[in-house]
Formats: sequence, structure tokens, C-alpha cells
Amino acid sequence: MAAYVVARRRSLGWITSQLGESSPSVVRCATLWRSYSTSFREERDTFGPIQVPSDKLWGAQTQRSLQNFDIGGERERMPEPIVRAFGILKKCAAKVNMEYGLDPAIGKAIMQAAQEVAEGKLNDHFPLVVWQTGSGTQSNMNANEVIANRAAEILGHKRGEKYVHPNDHVNRAQSSNDTFPTVMHIAAGMEINSRLIPKLNTLHSTLHSKSIEFKDIVKIGRTHTQDATPLTLGQEFSGYTTQVSYFPFCMENANLDAWQLAQGGTAVGTGLNTKKGFDVKIARAVAEETNLPFVTAENKFEALAAHDAFVECSGALNTIATSLMKIANDIRLLGSGPRCGLGELILPENEPGSSIMPGKVNPTQCEALTMVCAQVMGNNVAITVGGSNGHFELNVFKPMIASCLLHSARLLGDASASFEKNCVRGIQANKERISKLLHEVSYLSIQVSLRKMYEFTPNMIDSVANESPFYQEAALKLGVLTSEEFDTLVVPEKMIGPTD
Amino acid sequence: MAAYVVARRRSLGWITSQLGESSPSVVRCATLWRSYSTSFREERDTFGPIQVPSDKLWGAQTQRSLQNFDIGGERERMPEPIVRAFGILKKCAAKVNMEYGLDPAIGKAIMQAAQEVAEGKLNDHFPLVVWQTGSGTQSNMNANEVIANRAAEILGHKRGEKYVHPNDHVNRAQSSNDTFPTVMHIAAGMEINSRLIPKLNTLHSTLHSKSIEFKDIVKIGRTHTQDATPLTLGQEFSGYTTQVSYFPFCMENANLDAWQLAQGGTAVGTGLNTKKGFDVKIARAVAEETNLPFVTAENKFEALAAHDAFVECSGALNTIATSLMKIANDIRLLGSGPRCGLGELILPENEPGSSIMPGKVNPTQCEALTMVCAQVMGNNVAITVGGSNGHFELNVFKPMIASCLLHSARLLGDASASFEKNCVRGIQANKERISKLLHEVSYLSIQVSLRKMYEFTPNMIDSVANESPFYQEAALKLGVLTSEEFDTLVVPEKMIGPTD
Amino acid sequence: MAAYVVARRRSLGWITSQLGESSPSVVRCATLWRSYSTSFREERDTFGPIQVPSDKLWGAQTQRSLQNFDIGGERERMPEPIVRAFGILKKCAAKVNMEYGLDPAIGKAIMQAAQEVAEGKLNDHFPLVVWQTGSGTQSNMNANEVIANRAAEILGHKRGEKYVHPNDHVNRAQSSNDTFPTVMHIAAGMEINSRLIPKLNTLHSTLHSKSIEFKDIVKIGRTHTQDATPLTLGQEFSGYTTQVSYFPFCMENANLDAWQLAQGGTAVGTGLNTKKGFDVKIARAVAEETNLPFVTAENKFEALAAHDAFVECSGALNTIATSLMKIANDIRLLGSGPRCGLGELILPENEPGSSIMPGKVNPTQCEALTMVCAQVMGNNVAITVGGSNGHFELNVFKPMIASCLLHSARLLGDASASFEKNCVRGIQANKERISKLLHEVSYLSIQVSLRKMYEFTPNMIDSVANESPFYQEAALKLGVLTSEEFDTLVVPEKMIGPTD
Amino acid sequence: MAAYVVARRRSLGWITSQLGESSPSVVRCATLWRSYSTSFREERDTFGPIQVPSDKLWGAQTQRSLQNFDIGGERERMPEPIVRAFGILKKCAAKVNMEYGLDPAIGKAIMQAAQEVAEGKLNDHFPLVVWQTGSGTQSNMNANEVIANRAAEILGHKRGEKYVHPNDHVNRAQSSNDTFPTVMHIAAGMEINSRLIPKLNTLHSTLHSKSIEFKDIVKIGRTHTQDATPLTLGQEFSGYTTQVSYFPFCMENANLDAWQLAQGGTAVGTGLNTKKGFDVKIARAVAEETNLPFVTAENKFEALAAHDAFVECSGALNTIATSLMKIANDIRLLGSGPRCGLGELILPENEPGSSIMPGKVNPTQCEALTMVCAQVMGNNVAITVGGSNGHFELNVFKPMIASCLLHSARLLGDASASFEKNCVRGIQANKERISKLLHEVSYLSIQVSLRKMYEFTPNMIDSVANESPFYQEAALKLGVLTSEEFDTLVVPEKMIGPTD
Repeated sequence: MAAYVVARRRSLGWITSQLGESSPSVVRCATLWRSYSTSFREERDTFGPIQVPSDKLWGAQTQRSLQNFDIGGERERMPEPIVRAFGILKKCAAKVNMEYGLDPAIGKAIMQAAQEVAEGKLNDHFPLVVWQTGSGTQSNMNANEVIANRAAEILGHKRGEKYVHPNDHVNRAQSSNDTFPTVMHIAAGMEINSRLIPKLNTLHSTLHSKSIEFKDIVKIGRTHTQDATPLTLGQEFSGYTTQVSYFPFCMENANLDAWQLAQGGTAVGTGLNTKKGFDVKIARAVAEETNLPFVTAENKFEALAAHDAFVECSGALNTIATSLMKIANDIRLLGSGPRCGLGELILPENEPGSSIMPGKVNPTQCEALTMVCAQVMGNNVAITVGGSNGHFELNVFKPMIASCLLHSARLLGDASASFEKNCVRGIQANKERISKLLHEVSYLSIQVSLRKMYEFTPNMIDSVANESPFYQEAALKLGVLTSEEFDTLVVPEKMIGPTD
Repeated sequence: MAAYVVARRRSLGWITSQLGESSPSVVRCATLWRSYSTSFREERDTFGPIQVPSDKLWGAQTQRSLQNFDIGGERERMPEPIVRAFGILKKCAAKVNMEYGLDPAIGKAIMQAAQEVAEGKLNDHFPLVVWQTGSGTQSNMNANEVIANRAAEILGHKRGEKYVHPNDHVNRAQSSNDTFPTVMHIAAGMEINSRLIPKLNTLHSTLHSKSIEFKDIVKIGRTHTQDATPLTLGQEFSGYTTQVSYFPFCMENANLDAWQLAQGGTAVGTGLNTKKGFDVKIARAVAEETNLPFVTAENKFEALAAHDAFVECSGALNTIATSLMKIANDIRLLGSGPRCGLGELILPENEPGSSIMPGKVNPTQCEALTMVCAQVMGNNVAITVGGSNGHFELNVFKPMIASCLLHSARLLGDASASFEKNCVRGIQANKERISKLLHEVSYLSIQVSLRKMYEFTPNMIDSVANESPFYQEAALKLGVLTSEEFDTLVVPEKMIGPTD
Repeated sequence: MAAYVVARRRSLGWITSQLGESSPSVVRCATLWRSYSTSFREERDTFGPIQVPSDKLWGAQTQRSLQNFDIGGERERMPEPIVRAFGILKKCAAKVNMEYGLDPAIGKAIMQAAQEVAEGKLNDHFPLVVWQTGSGTQSNMNANEVIANRAAEILGHKRGEKYVHPNDHVNRAQSSNDTFPTVMHIAAGMEINSRLIPKLNTLHSTLHSKSIEFKDIVKIGRTHTQDATPLTLGQEFSGYTTQVSYFPFCMENANLDAWQLAQGGTAVGTGLNTKKGFDVKIARAVAEETNLPFVTAENKFEALAAHDAFVECSGALNTIATSLMKIANDIRLLGSGPRCGLGELILPENEPGSSIMPGKVNPTQCEALTMVCAQVMGNNVAITVGGSNGHFELNVFKPMIASCLLHSARLLGDASASFEKNCVRGIQANKERISKLLHEVSYLSIQVSLRKMYEFTPNMIDSVANESPFYQEAALKLGVLTSEEFDTLVVPEKMIGPTD
Repeated sequence: MAAYVVARRRSLGWITSQLGESSPSVVRCATLWRSYSTSFREERDTFGPIQVPSDKLWGAQTQRSLQNFDIGGERERMPEPIVRAFGILKKCAAKVNMEYGLDPAIGKAIMQAAQEVAEGKLNDHFPLVVWQTGSGTQSNMNANEVIANRAAEILGHKRGEKYVHPNDHVNRAQSSNDTFPTVMHIAAGMEINSRLIPKLNTLHSTLHSKSIEFKDIVKIGRTHTQDATPLTLGQEFSGYTTQVSYFPFCMENANLDAWQLAQGGTAVGTGLNTKKGFDVKIARAVAEETNLPFVTAENKFEALAAHDAFVECSGALNTIATSLMKIANDIRLLGSGPRCGLGELILPENEPGSSIMPGKVNPTQCEALTMVCAQVMGNNVAITVGGSNGHFELNVFKPMIASCLLHSARLLGDASASFEKNCVRGIQANKERISKLLHEVSYLSIQVSLRKMYEFTPNMIDSVANESPFYQEAALKLGVLTSEEFDTLVVPEKMIGPTD
């Protein structure tokens, strides 16, 4: 332990000296990462040696970040899809680097180690939080260090010896400035395509079934929350279905630029330190590895300095959130009741609704979904603010932008799936209630419009309509319709479409 | 005047009676619209008669809205593109309605009157503010009333007689619920295509010229606001150019759904009160009239109840704003100085910059543009909130959504044009300054990376680098480069791309 | 005219030469401001001479801004409260400057001219838009120029002669960098105190009356939009009343820093060019003139470089918007119907609701108010983005921040007043409907909770409850209550508060 | 395991039957919570029996939520401060309930169990995510179930037997609808007071020290990013110090309503099921337990149905974020370089900055902090959206609102502390650089303003100024200053304040 204390003192420098050895913040910080382990090994970087938990694969720079960015605790760790995307990228980089002269033994070991990262097997070795350097450098180094140490082990060498070097071998021909935006795009592309869109498609398909199931149920329409002309419940659900049907296109349109990978731009976009063709080859390797249409970015300067593609993508998620909030709101209001609300829909009962009113069942899936939508709208603003604040050759809000986008995509996907499974799929129409409401509304006023008679005052219409349910009598009294016209015209079932 | 007071008393009902005749708020409200005129005629709607200024074409419902929604004053009037779009729509509706039996004399007069609205000739007759009923009903009635009175005049009849009826003739087979979303889409489509995109294209083209003009000027790159590896000023501008080159695609992708017109859905989306085919014909008529690819909406329920297309479109504008803020920020920082800033760019001097420091010239176009960007980001949130709050068959945040989107599009277009004309076009490179800075940076540390030597501490590098400008000596002393290597490698001009 | 063309050519410089004389954008720009007038006089600034419409009081710098910032058109003009606040400030500055040696004849003429600006009499002479230089310099110069020319006229001199000098006399000891934040605070303080808070207080008072009026009407409560335990309609409105009662405190708390005036900081906050005590005196003069508690800013560097006070103030407006949206949503949903909604409230009928369904009356005031709330939420984001983007000694998003805040305050005030007058004041309880719904709900499940019997399944409760309205029988059957308990416990009127 | 499968089948009902036993989504969901344990016990609620991991204290309703809300994974768990606040509340509730007749043996066991929750000892037994029912019912039940089972164990009974009943004993006289808003306020009050404000105060104190340390360093001021008049570096830092000095007041003002506790309102705000005085007593108990000024809410209807206090509080956090973003941006730009930037500040070097440029040191603490600020701005929008969407007697965006606010408070506190410790504390002035820049700027133009000579064109001033550094000569040549005046006036050190 003595060695460790000395090392720490050196690396924290003047801070420790000002604070004194027992300063709570130093101790707390030490406690944090010491909780991972009780034994340590020495790793070093250009800042000197530092103690690292023996059972962890990371190196000096990861350790330093852990101590310098004590922000938010463990739930703020870099999202798993980013970690996995680093595995994919580093594997591809090794593969391409071997074409450009990287020792094949080392290259293959890197590929194997990176594959383990890609599969999530080494997640415990990625302890850094989102709130670090804005280029994601420390997470890139975390990946380099873990893969280097693991690859060294594979080749029979010890951790920390740098037989496989994190910079010279694993990070070869790369810079954090191009790797981090690359893993952002890989992670987002995979999450959106493998998790989000399939779940949205399932929701669409279930809504579509419902719109067919409900196609013959005529109900009152509501505009301004007020009674309007009738439509079928199937037509109402066809609106939701259409909204959701646009989601995949919306994502795909927004995503077009997201397939462009920054890799090959290195530090400022020029590609310094790479060989010609490296960028195209690595994009192709990633495309093959992920089976997704990744290509090298048209302009690497743009790809490092701006994240317009992510802002656009987040705008698409925001549109989806806006749309789902409308749908979920409608469903909870149409299902309100059971006796004192609208009560047209019967929502599945999944759990007791209340700790004080035992018989109560609540539209909890709508609630979870709308909360998610609010969060997505918020994340969109965070991404917008981050996207607008790039300076010169590098936007340094990268980890926050990546984290918010992946957060939004994951939450929207999961909540859509939960909503579909635990709510939409089980929605039933309360036909009796729907029919009762439909026949209470005054069609007289509706028919007046068909008869082009705008000169009746609301009072006149109301006074007659109030004599409901005797509409027919009222209509005759008012003289707007003959008895025959009434029978022909005042039929909700005939009011749900244009006439021939 | 006595007649007017009586009429008002009737229409304001119990409010007036509670307030007493001299209540300031009633007086103020009366003052407001009386300021338009000193003589009045009577118009009526289903609420009864009401006094309207004689020189105005509007009718009873417009007048009532004017009194009931005293919110924000004249600058909050419904945006002109909406008013003009009403002209286009009502012209097309009359044309199609004639096919379905509308009296041709009346139909032609409506078309002529509507054309005047479309040309902005009757703007003074559209006094209503955005903050009215959320379906835009009152602006639809404003259009109906103005066109009906104007058409009647064309046919030799008096205002207020309803020879041409605002509902039965002008609004025939329509509802506010389908006309207002239709004019939203017409107005947005026209503004974005005729005003916004051409201005963005001009900005793109000028940025592109600059990237070519500057292609041979090698400069220091900056990441994290810190000195990094070199690039050309042309490469830097190529990043901006690429960003802007995506704007039209971004708008077009987002806009795909915006070409869908709600017209034909009438009150709740069923198309009640229309004949089959009306929706397709009217969309075709609008497409012909505007020369834009409008089509009838795939699903009218969606088209009335949600504005996902506008949220998506606003998301695209938000992306553009985010992107332009980055570019404008860079340009003002690169042009900072003249002596104590970065000073790499010389921005045009358009006006005196300061009321206290006469020689000062400021990046005012960047400032106007970034303020616009902030407003667009805010409007995007307003649109998102409005879009998510639809209820049942109708979203009733329509005027606000329309107003914000048109505001954003107009501001972005105008500010881009102003920025292009008054700033970008005149940007000059301060070659001396750029060269001076470039040769001050320590390439030693950069070269160390090329030499794969990560074990030097920053202190070692710094201490040697501080002996600058004698880099060569320093490098030799440190033993990282031979004299020959130095001459070959440490050449900024060779560091702006990948190697063969 | 020839002189004018030559002058313009000189000032627009190389732009014109590149465009050719007939370039549409130059022509359009020229058209814009030429529409104000047909005759011109020459004014000059450090950039040289320029033609200004003869009938306008503004000078060269205003004219230049008009040509350089053709963004958004007339509705984007600097808000009137800012113009009036410039009148107040310049009057106070002249008064204080006379104490420090300004020629009293000139000083008094400035005071008189400034008073006219403060009263809104010279609004037509303030043509500049919000989207100009981010320090508001051009609007400060607009005020200086108009007041100087008007003061010169008062003293019998001609416009443009600079007998009263815009900089040396009107702007004496001031900089745009301190005047603009000062007028922002004056305008906001006046608008919030004179217009917004009184309107919020009226709304509070009317809601409070309603909560008393409705105090004995027992109704069903709703949580999760589902039937819950009863409360009185008065209690429900007391919730709204309490929400609104916090608004003035919320504004006042947020406003504390808004009373601090930047004046006296001049260019960067040091107060260079002023005499000691100038800052305190001018704040005192403004306080006297406005009868509001303005003081000089504690720290002038903060007052120029940041607008945290405005962000805080906008946060308070955002809170009010959030709160009002909740209230307006509730009221429209409680007033939904008339037959197929909740129908517990009867909202005033102010205008015909529909262009297609004549008898329909809509909650239009709720709609206008909620649209306003969405806009305020959006403006809050715009202000936040602007507030966060200050650089060094000056935030240059000032006009946008001021415009958004004044927009939000005006809209919230006006919409609250309209909502109060045209909606809340006339709300009536639909007692029959309320009573009918109340007695339909199953109190059995509620009572079960009182009896602490959580082991009944919802199915058991439902099956019995479905035999409604025979609750008593059902309760006996289930064995949860004796006949006597039922009569004692199942009384909604006893369920609206804690027990003794 | 057979029993478990049967139980699950019953509870998931028709879903399982439609999916078939091997449906991936069911399996995945089962896998998720089965990963916690390999043995199970049966718990039951009104929906019937359900299998729960034997080593967990939670009961049936927690288990059901775990299965029904598979959204976001473990990092989305309800924030720890909410869990701990439940411990505090339930302890206080038991204490007060004993006064109203709760069996003291049971009451004391509940208090002991709740204390363990308050201390974070039972965190592993709170597995539910934020995205659940919008009232937080399931987390309230989670607390009730865990405390009931733990209290039963303390009293020598088994888990699941309900010797201590989660509803009748632990939740006695409470409803989720009042407990969840109560714990929101307890958690926020504690986090803000114990963690956030102290960290902001430390930041303030360090900035204040710096403003004193730098008080004699005269430097160039910058407005519009352009050279302006001088100020001291201490004055510049005093601006930051003043900004931060307002943070605690801003939080406290916003927080006033946050001290109001909803407890005692039960289901809809009426206090049904409680005894008179319960609300006051429990607020007093919480105040004693936390040593914070909690009181019972003035109006319980408002306290359940709206979260205006949280929106206001989030607005304060948003203001702080806006402010800190400005400060952090300034610091990174003032520290830009080391050779090609402004270079006035030297920021501490905490870690290697680049994976490709070894000598590079980046302003990483500024980056982490500004990313946090962007997230806080986004969360503010999420909270605003959630706050505005309450319906009737209950806002059901509670868990999201709580989670976002606690997220923002935690991140701002931690990032401020990290920024203070790892950046601000170690900032050094680069005096040489500051002095060099200061003397490069042209004071001539500045002095011209002092001499009230606005008629010089920028060209004249520039042409003379360009002959720098011979300012004196230039001034004489231009005739604006005599040699003596020059020596007296053109002294930066005299330009940093008003004159006598």
C-alpha cells in the first residue's frame, strides 16, 4: 500500500499537498476506486506511474480519469452499446492495420480481445462515466488499455508490461477524435436498427390489427374535446397506425448521415498518421462486421467538428416521442372511467392500481410511455445544446450527445414494446358504452350543417336538442328535416365517409 | 353609435353586465378594433348581429374573435404565408366545387377574390392573432368572410348581405379542421421551397467558393480549443460547406410527409359532407396552383389529429440551427481580435461596432445568426409541446405550431442570406497571422506521436519545446529525431492528409 | 435620387459591385426602407455619409442596420417596451449628466425628447429588428439618433446637423454594453409589474371566487384519469387557486436580481468614461421615474457578461406556463361534452365553434392559453441557449433574450386576462351531471380500503360492483359491511376530509 | 419451478397464452428477474400469488412491476435518494401512526426497518425502474413490502406471511398519491441542501480567492470576442464569483415551495382515511428527522395534482447550468493555446490529453461541466413537459420528474466540485502573455472616444493605429492628443474604473 500512496501523491500533485493527506474528498475518491479491489499493480502513462486494481484490465489513463471525474456515480457509466462498439471498431482496426504492416500475432490477439469487448464480456473493465473529457478520449484509452492488456495475456504476457501497446498497437492510425464519433455512429446504428425499429414495427403491427378489429364499431368523434361527428373506432386507430407507420421512415431518413463513419480523420480530420485508403477499408470492415450499411464519411472535418447527424437523429426520436405521447394520451382518456370517464376502451389490468383503493386499475403503461416521451424531448434539447457548441475542429460534447441519444432510443424502444405487450395488444372496445354515447349526441346540429342552414342560433338548436332523445320530433318541430329525411340522413353509420 | 353599443352588449352578454359599461377592459377592447374605423355595418352569425368596420371585408365571426382574443397585439397576427395559403386553398376549393355543382358565377367570383388573398392584396382584412381557437377556425372563417364579401362585391352585391355565403359557398365541403392543416402545409411547403432552401443553397455555394479560395492556406488546427495538428483553411471551410450541403436533404426528408394535405377530411377525418374524390382533386388543384408536389393525405384522421410532419420539419430546422450556430461561432472566434484574439479571418466591416469605441468592428452578422438559431431551438420545443398535446380527433395547437414553424423558416432563411451577403462573401484570410501562428506551435509533440513514443512525459516535451523556436535543436537534444528526419517530417504542409 | 444611389453604392461597397445594380436582393432591401419615404437627407457616421428618409428622425447607424439586417420583416421589430425603456433611460442619463457638466439647455431638450420616446410617441422612428448586433448597439444608436435629432429640433436646429450629438450628448458616459442590459431590465420590470402580475392577480381572485362558489358541490375525484375518491368542486378549484397564488411570489423571487441595473459599467464593466457615483445616481433616477425598486448592479462585469437574472425570470414564466397548462387542460376536459364527455363544467359560449357543426361550442380560451404556454416553454429554451453563450465581457444574445422574455410576459399576461374574462369568470357547475356521475361510481372498493381488506381481488370487487346500483345489497352479499355500516360509511359527503 | 411457471401464467394471463411459452420476450423478462436468485417464495396481492426471489424482501406488487415494466435496464432504477426518503417517511409515519393507535410493537419494528432503508442498507431490495406507473405507486409498494417483511423478520416472523402488513400497517393512513410527492420533496430538499449547495459554495469561495489573487493583473477586455477596453483579471473573475454567489439564493427562492409536504392528502388531496392533525404531525416528524424546514402543504390538492415547485426548482438548476456554461466556456477559451490561442490562463494538467498528440493537455474539466450543463437544460424541458401534463387530481409524471431533478442536482453538484478541485483551484495567470496582449491593442481608438471625436472614420483610425507600436507618434500625427495627454491618458492601469 505504501507504493500506492506515494504514486497517488505524485499524480494528484499540488492538490493533495494543499488538502493534506486526510482530506475527505481525496479519501472519498480513493475509496471509490479502491472498492473495486484490494491489491494493485503499477501502470504508467506520460504522467507517470499509478496504481491500478490487479483484477482489472484497464491502465493508467483509465485510472486517472476515474479519480479526476467523480461525477454522478456508477449509473452514469458510459452506455454499454458504446463499449461494445469500441470492441467492434478495435477489431476492425486491427484487421485493417495488419494489411498496413501490424505484426499479425499482435493483430490477431487484439482482434480476439476486441471481440470479447464487442460481446460485452469485459463490461466490468469499463468503469468510466459519461462526464469526462468531451472527446471521449478517456473511454477510447480505456478500450485501448483493456484490449492491450487482454491481448497481451492471450499472448502469454503480463498486464501492464505493454507487450501489446495501447497506443502504438491498439490505437494505431487512430485518434480519440475519430474513434469516438465512429463508435457513436456504430452504437446508434446498431441500437436503432436492432432494437428500436423492430419494436416500433411490432407496435405498428398490433395497432394495425386493432384498427381492423374495430372497423365496424361506430363511435362519436371528438374535436376540441367536444362531441363532433361520428367515425369508427377502427378509423380512430388507423390514425394511430399511420402515425406509427411513419416512424421507421422518419428514423431512416434522419439516419442517412449516421451511416457515415469518421474513422480515418484522426486528430483534426486530415487523416494525418494514416495511409491512403485506410478510411474506406475500415468503414467496409465495420459494415461487414455489423451487417449495416456503414461507409466512410464524405468529409472528415465535418464528422469530427459537428454532430448534425445525431441532432437530426434525435429530432426523429423527438418526433416519435411527440407522436407516441398523443397516442398514449388518447388511449388513457378513452379508457378513463370505469364509470365517470369516457370509458370507450377497456385497458388490460396488469397490477393493482392503488395502495389505498384496491379495486382501481390504472393506465400505467400509458404513464410509463408518456414519461419516457417527456425524457426524450428533454434529451433532444440536451443534444441540440451539445451539438451547437462545437469549437473549431472538434465538438467536445460527444459522450453526452451519445449517451442522450442512446438513452432516448433505448427508452423509446423498451417503452413501445412494453406498451404494445402490456397494453395495446389487450385493448378491448366497450361496445355498449360506445353505442350509448353515440346515440346521446345531438345529430340535429350536424345535420343542420348538411342542410346548409347556418342561420339557426345555437340557442335554437340547443333548445330543441335538449328535448332529446326525441330528435325526430325536434327536427320536425324546427322544420329542418322532413320525417323521411330524418330517417335517411340521421344515421351515424352513414356519416363515416364521403358520399358517392 | 347607439346601435353599436346595443349590439355589443348583446354579444358580450353577461360579461358586460357584470363589468358595467365603463369597465376599462371592455373599453380597451372596443378601442382596439374601433381604431380601425369610424363607421360600421352590421354582420351576423349564429350568435346574432355584431358591428363591423365598414371599410373591412371581414364578417361577424372575425369581429367576435377580435374582441374575444385580445392577446399580444398586432405583431401576433396570423403570419402572412398562412393568409396567402388560404387564398390558394379557397381558389382551388371553388374550382373543384364547381365540378360538384357549385354555381359557376359564384364559383368564379370566389376564385377571383381568393386570388387577391393569395397575392397578399387583402392582408389588411386579416386582423386575427395566432392566439385564438386552436383549430384556426376563426382564421378560416376570416378567409371565408373576406372572400365571400369580396366575391359578392365583384358580382355587384353588398358586403354583409351574404349573396355569396361564407359557409355554404366559400367553405363548401370544408371544415376548419381540414382547411387549417391544409394551409399550414401549403404555407410551409412554399416558404421552405421558395425562400428557405434557395437561401441555404446560396450560403452553401459561397462557403464552397471560400473553401476553394482558401485551399492552399495551411493553418494550425484546434481541438478542445487547444493547438492540434495542421490543416488548410480550405479544409476547415469544407467542413462548414459539407454541413450546409446536407440542409436541403435534411429539409426534404423531413418534408416528405408535409406534402400530404388534410383537405377532404372535414370535421373528424371521415370526409363527411364531401363527395368521393374531392380530396384527390383538391390536392391536385393545389399542386397545380403552387407547382409543388402536394398530394392528398394517406390517412385523414392522422392529418387532423397529429402534426408529426410539422414536428419532424421543425426537427430539421432545429438541426440546421444547431449546425449554423457552430459555423457562426467558429467564424467569430477565428475572426476575433484584431490584436488580442485568434485573428485568422478578417470579417467585412459593415457598420460602426461600438457607441463608445469608435474603431471597433464586430462580427454582427454572426451575432444576428446565432440569435436566430437560439430562437429556432426554442420554437422547436414549442412545436414539440404543441404536437404532443393533441386530443382525440383534433390537435388544437395548430396556429401556434404553424406560426412557430413559419417563424423559424423565415428567420433561418433571412439570417442565412444576410450572413452570406454581409459576412461570408467578404471573409478574407489573414495569411500573415495564420502563418505566424502555425510556426509557433510545437510540432515536436506531434512528431513524437508519429514516432510512436508515448513514454515521454509532457514535462519532458514541454521543457524542450519551450526552447522554441529552435525545434530542430530540441529534437536532436531529445534524441527523438535525427537532423534529416526533422527536415523531412516536421513540415506542416506535409501533415494535412494521409500518406501514400 | 442620384445622390442617394451614389451614397448607397459607397456604403454597400464591393457587394453592390459584385451583384450589379439590378441584383434583386439589393433592390428588395432598398425597396423595403424606401417604402418609408420618397425624399431623403444625408446623415453620416464613421463609415461615411448615407441617405435617410427625410421624415424620419433616425440617423446613419440606424439606416445602416436597416440595410444590413433584412431579417424577418416588420413583425420582428424591437419590442415597444424596449423602445420606451430607452426613453426613460436616456431621460435619466441626461438628468444625471447635467449634474456632471452637460450643458443644461441641451440636457433639458434631451429630457423632453426622451420623454416623447418613453410615451411611445416616436415609435415609428424605431424601425430596427431584433436580429441585429447581439449587444443591441444599433437600437441604442437608434435611440441616440432619434433623441438627438428631436432635441435639436426642439432647440430650433435641423435634423442631421448634430447640434445635439447622439454619442457625445445623448449617449454620454454610456455604452451600448450597459444601456442595452439596463433597458432590458427596465422593460421587463415594468411589463411584469404593471401588466403581468395584475392580470395574474385577477385570475387568482376569480379562481378563488369560484372555489368558494363551488364549495358544497361534491363530485368524483379522478387520479390516473380513473375514478377515485370524492372531493368538492370547490376543493378542486382551490388547487388551481393555490397554484396561481404562487405566481407573483415566483416572479418576485426570480425578479430580485432583475432590479439590478448595469448602467455605469460602460464598455466592459469597469465604468471607464464615467465619474464615480454615476451608476448609483442613474439607478436612483430610473427608480424614481418608474416608481420601481431599481438599484445599481452589485457587479457590473456580471451584469454585462451574463443574463442569469433573465434566465431565472424566464424560468419563473416557464413555471407559470406549466401551471396554467395544467389548469386549462383540466377545465377543458371537465367541460368536455356536452353529451359524450365528462361534462361537469359548463364553459361560456363566446363564438360559434365550428364552420361545419353550427351548434358546437369549443373551449377556445383554454386553447389560446395552452398555445401561449407552449410558446413560453419554447422561449424559455431560446433564452437558456442565449444566456449560456456569452463570451468574455459581453453576452451578445441580448436582443433575442429581451424579445423572448417580453414576448412570454406579454402573452402570459394577455392570455391570462382573456382566459379570466372570457372563460373562468363564466364557468358554471353542471350540478345534475356531477351528481349523476358521483352516484355511479362504486364506493364499495373505496370502502374496502377503509376496512383494511386488501385481500379481495379486483375480480371479486368488480363482480359485485357490477350489480350496481344495488351497492348496499352487494356489500352485504360480500360481507364487508353490515347494513348499518353501509348507511354510515358510504356517504360521499363524509369522504371529503380527514376524520376527527 | 413448476409452481413458478403456473403462477406466472396466471398473472400474465392472455399475453402468455398468445405468445406461447417460449416467446422470447417472456423468456427475456423472466430471465431478467430470475438472474437475481435461484430459489423463490410465494407472495400474493389482490391479483393472486406470484413467485418472488427468496433472498429479496420485496413482495408481490414489486415483482409484478418488475415483469410489467422491462424498460431501460438497471441503470434506470429509481434514484437512491428516493429510496432513502421512503425510509425516512415510513419511519415518521409509523411514529405518528402509533399516536393514532398503531400497535407499538409493530410500529417500532417498522421504524427500525425503515431506518435501515433510510441508511441505504436495503438498496438491493429496490429493483424498480423510473418508468413505471406515473404516481410511483409501485415504488411506494416496494417500500411498504420491503419494510413489512423486514419488520416481520425483526419480530421473528417469516417473509410473505404479512404479520406486518404492507398496506394496513406500513402504508397506514397513506396513499401513493401523497407518499410519492412527499418523498420527492424530502429527497430533493436533502440533495440540494446537503450536496448541491455546499459544493456550489466551495466553488464560489475558490472563485472569490482567484478574483483576489488576480486583482492587480491588468488585461485586455473582450466584447463581441473583439478587443475592447482593459480590466483586471480579478475583475473578470469577480463577475464569475458574483454569478455563482447568486446560486444558493436562486435555489432557496425556488425551493420555498419545495419544503411543503403532500403527506396527509391521501388519494385525491382530501385526507380521506387520515385523522385530523395527521398531516401537520408527519411534516413535523420529517422536519425533525432531517433537520430541514419541512412543513405540511398549504393545499393538498395542489400538492398532488401539480409539481410547480419542482418545475420552479428545475428552473433554478437551469439558471445555474446556463451560468456555469458561460463561466466554463470563458475559462477554456482564455486558457486556449498554448501557443495559437488566447493563452491568458494556465489550466491544471490532470491527465494526458490526447491519444495521438502526447504533449497535449485539454480543458477536460470545463468539458465535463459543460456537458453536464447541457444535460441539465434538457432535463428542465423534460420536467416542464411532465409538469404541464397533470390530469385532474393527480400528476402522473412523478417518477420522471423526480428522477430528472435529482439527476440534474447530483450532476451539477458533482461537476461543480470536480471543476473546483481539478480546475479552478489550480488556475494560474499567464502574466507575460496577458501583458504582451494588453500592450498590442490600439488604445488610440479607445481614447478617441474619451475625446468625443466620433467623426474619424475607422479607416483613419486604423491606418494610424496600424503604425503601432508607435501609438504616441500616431496620436500626435492625427492630432487627437498632445504628447502630455498621451502620457496621462493612454495608461491601461488607469482605465479600469470610473474617474473621480
